[in-house]
Amino acid sequence: MKRLHEKMEQEGRVLSKHVLKVDSFLNHQIDPQLMKEIGETFAELFQEAGITKILTLESSGIAPSVMTGLVLGVPVVFARKRQSLTMTDDLLTADVYSFTKETTNRITVSKSFLTEDDKVLIIDDFLANGQAALGLINIVKQAGSEIAGIGIVIEKSFQDGRSLLQKEGIRVESLARIHSLQDGQIQFKAEVPQ
Amino acid sequence: MKRLHEKMEQEGRVLSKHVLKVDSFLNHQIDPQLMKEIGETFAELFQEAGITKILTLESSGIAPSVMTGLVLGVPVVFARKRQSLTMTDDLLTADVYSFTKETTNRITVSKSFLTEDDKVLIIDDFLANGQAALGLINIVKQAGSEIAGIGIVIEKSFQDGRSLLQKEGIRVESLARIHSLQDGQIQFKAEVPQ
Repeated sequence: MKRLHEKMEQEGRVLSKHVLKVDSFLNHQIDPQLMKEIGETFAELFQEAGITKILTLESSGIAPSVMTGLVLGVPVVFARKRQSLTMTDDLLTADVYSFTKETTNRITVSKSFLTEDDKVLIIDDFLANGQAALGLINIVKQAGSEIAGIGIVIEKSFQDGRSLLQKEGIRVESLARIHSLQDGQIQFKAEVPQ
Repeated sequence: MKRLHEKMEQEGRVLSKHVLKVDSFLNHQIDPQLMKEIGETFAELFQEAGITKILTLESSGIAPSVMTGLVLGVPVVFARKRQSLTMTDDLLTADVYSFTKETTNRITVSKSFLTEDDKVLIIDDFLANGQAALGLINIVKQAGSEIAGIGIVIEKSFQDGRSLLQKEGIRVESLARIHSLQDGQIQFKAEVPQ
């Protein structure tokens, strides 16, 4: 997605060969117009997939998901990283290991919002090791819903998230794929000589 | 806001005389079309206020804020409840006491995203005791930005948030004002005999 690539090049900051900081438009400050275009792109990619619900993870997945849900005309559910006081319903939970933080977090979704009739598009801001995505997949499976695919805003293609998801037979659509962050530069996957 | 009132009446669940659960469209599952209408309403209310930035709090404030930012053509910044690993910048922080949880949480915003030239609209999902809103105001003041006002999706008018904010001279615009949650019923402020 051209606009996203440009924005990453203009505003992204490469903190290390593993970390790209994009908190001027995605992770802390949000560019609503870019989110709208991201939503339109995801909606186009999955328009024939019969999506009934979008599942994401708080907080950075919410903006692109809501814009996608608006175009597809379906609700968005965000999994919580911490349990809310008013979450008194039966819960679906999954444990997500973070390689960067070296901690395991339990993510939760109320059973009420995912059913056997749902066809779910999972959306997240980043795909790296795929642990968060696998946690969301686990929750969708527990609910008995069907997974239509995963939409990722920024994929770190030098980590093994995509291959883990594809091994599960999941369709993965990433709007930007980073081949490497070596030497403080973003090299996109498409630029890599084939 | 009529659509919001209807949605609250149809889907809101009164858990106690203090707690209204609206997680089928705002706090866990999100209705993107309703968020769009909420965004348009906030944008109309504050269209003459010269807003340059919207500040909200993760996670439930993000959807209505991004829709408002889209119409006003301004970025959204969400304060974090937990510090991100890549938040290496100088931070603005405020402590927010939660009466329901009886805990104090530190909320943080990178200094980079609020400047002395900004005119800020604060948006949040709920206004009850006003503690979260006061924390956000504190952060805007530290940044030296101007506060244009606060947009609230649902105000519990039987708690003292609004009066605390108005004492600070802040303009408060709430799209739904709840007079009481007695007897398991939502009574809206407008319905109260004057």
